[in-house]
Amino acid sequence: MARASLREDIVNAAVEQFHMFGFTAAGVKDITDAAGAPKGSFYNHFESKEALAVIALERYGATRGLAALGDTSVPPLARLRWHFEALRDENLAYGFSRGCLIGDLATEIADHSEVVRKAVQDSMQQWCDALSGTIAEAQQAGEVTKALEADTIARFVLSAWEGALVSARSDKSAKSFEAFFTVVFGVVLR
Amino acid sequence: MARASLREDIVNAAVEQFHMFGFTAAGVKDITDAAGAPKGSFYNHFESKEALAVIALERYGATRGLAALGDTSVPPLARLRWHFEALRDENLAYGFSRGCLIGDLATEIADHSEVVRKAVQDSMQQWCDALSGTIAEAQQAGEVTKALEADTIARFVLSAWEGALVSARSDKSAKSFEAFFTVVFGVVLR
Repeated sequence: MARASLREDIVNAAVEQFHMFGFTAAGVKDITDAAGAPKGSFYNHFESKEALAVIALERYGATRGLAALGDTSVPPLARLRWHFEALRDENLAYGFSRGCLIGDLATEIADHSEVVRKAVQDSMQQWCDALSGTIAEAQQAGEVTKALEADTIARFVLSAWEGALVSARSDKSAKSFEAFFTVVFGVVLR
Repeated sequence: MARASLREDIVNAAVEQFHMFGFTAAGVKDITDAAGAPKGSFYNHFESKEALAVIALERYGATRGLAALGDTSVPPLARLRWHFEALRDENLAYGFSRGCLIGDLATEIADHSEVVRKAVQDSMQQWCDALSGTIAEAQQAGEVTKALEADTIARFVLSAWEGALVSARSDKSAKSFEAFFTVVFGVVLR
């Protein structure tokens, strides 16, 4: 193999291309071009575009800051706030474009590819579990009411975040992020 | 013109095709085939697929039940609950597929077509305004706290709904809807 990093370059290019243009609009040639790889090399490394999307989801999931949610040196409610502030700042830097790759692939492909749907479900569940763990800690610490199950709050807050990204993308403004922080940290996580 | 209803048939087919397959995956020929119309007739009626998407969004928006949100014969909080229950039931009938066409087009196309993005923004704003009006009524009636602005709650709840559809689509379960109703009607609208 001429370049040991060719596979890696294609994966990184796929994360970018899927995130910017969507699964259908980003063709295999767009991805290999962006990676500076010959199109013919694609199928030496990946069975299909779907198989690549599954790997891209894993890579993207690893950048969602889930490890920091488990950093017990920071009070749990502050961890939750910093988590979403970091995600908001990332989206602001993209000018409200791109959304979340997990939600993007859920929307575009989950109905049409069982293998991608399953990978999206796993990514969401992993994220939900991390949030739920931190919320449960916040409940134990008396920072958040125990009136609701941590899992229910986590699932809701994650959905609300995904939806806030959809809204921000449509009006290219931070209004939905402001509403998210006001309601989630002012009312839900109390 | 052979069929007076040809344009109408194409619009209805476009709503279905965009909702089922997405904007990029649903080609002009898929839409005209589904409408039983010759492909060549498309550009007699529509300037572009984007122009058709704008009309499809208006049609879809008219089915979101916004008029019922203004039905003052029903207490405002009950109207809000029925509104989202009807949307949930619609999605259950689709087996958790399709999502919301407005959110779908926001996710797939808002970054790439200014005309579609603007139409998505208008649809979202109209919906947000209708929700905000009903929430303000609920506040006046003492059903919902005035601690937050009705507009902020409306924007948040609409985002949370859009996100719940994304989650339901990814795990093909009603868990995110259950979390939505528990938190929105148990905690946020109080």
